[in-house]
Amino acid sequence: MTSGDVDTTGPRLLPAEDMPVGEEIDCGSYEVTEQEIVEFATAWDPQYFHVDRDLAEHSDFGGLIASGLHTASIFQRLAATGVYQRYDVVAGKEIHNMRFLRPVRAGDTLTCSIVIRSVEPAGPGRSLVTIYGALANQRRRPVLELHVESLVRSRAVEQGAVRSE
Amino acid sequence: MTSGDVDTTGPRLLPAEDMPVGEEIDCGSYEVTEQEIVEFATAWDPQYFHVDRDLAEHSDFGGLIASGLHTASIFQRLAATGVYQRYDVVAGKEIHNMRFLRPVRAGDTLTCSIVIRSVEPAGPGRSLVTIYGALANQRRRPVLELHVESLVRSRAVEQGAVRSE
Repeated sequence: MTSGDVDTTGPRLLPAEDMPVGEEIDCGSYEVTEQEIVEFATAWDPQYFHVDRDLAEHSDFGGLIASGLHTASIFQRLAATGVYQRYDVVAGKEIHNMRFLRPVRAGDTLTCSIVIRSVEPAGPGRSLVTIYGALANQRRRPVLELHVESLVRSRAVEQGAVRSE
Repeated sequence: MTSGDVDTTGPRLLPAEDMPVGEEIDCGSYEVTEQEIVEFATAWDPQYFHVDRDLAEHSDFGGLIASGLHTASIFQRLAATGVYQRYDVVAGKEIHNMRFLRPVRAGDTLTCSIVIRSVEPAGPGRSLVTIYGALANQRRRPVLELHVESLVRSRAVEQGAVRSE
């Protein structure tokens, strides 16, 4: 970088063309606490089985479970720090088939993995990126899966080729 | 209620059979602040266009926008207080076709509406409830739509009839 090429927008972000299509990316882990389950759900999903330990004992799960939105937010945190922050993301567009497969409880450690399924042209300078994401608990059992479509800036202004698994 | 019929589980919750299939339910509104956009995204979606006002000016949207998970959480808060808290919900199962249709910015007021699309038998004492949910901004333009499937306790242990729009 020369002095005439000053970067005023923080770290340089990579274009969609540089995303590793088809590789499984390990995005790290996150430990869930009872305090966070209750705080998140008090703000965003105040149902008794998320916010009241005593009443939750009468639920199907026999105790507090995390809100699905809390679980999805844990996924997003790990996805942002593990993948998205490196690329020139414009915005998320859609989430498909987000499945809450097992209850998430206090003390669980969730591990995130992502596969970039495809990178397709989406107008001048933009690509549509589709990822598959999953969270598993400390017993390696899946608790969440989802598909996310995002727009990411691409290097070429010309329409590029579709890349997919 | 007689003295022999003590309710130890808080307010009595309604079974799936009592859900008003096909009616549009107004779940109220929520005002989004810049502080909350930044706090939510700092915790759960740390991408520059959600957390850094200055860098966000260089994004496609020319300023801070709320995380899609933040927007979805606002939906869930209004859905929980407007609908779910009255019914005997077991758990959320799946979210389909969640679309982030327009950017959500500080100062926006989002209004939530829900239509219960169907209530179907899902094993003894359980119904699968499918809702369509939407958030619109103060200009009545849609910003979020989604479909949610949840399990809700039903009155009858026997398999009941499908009810749908």
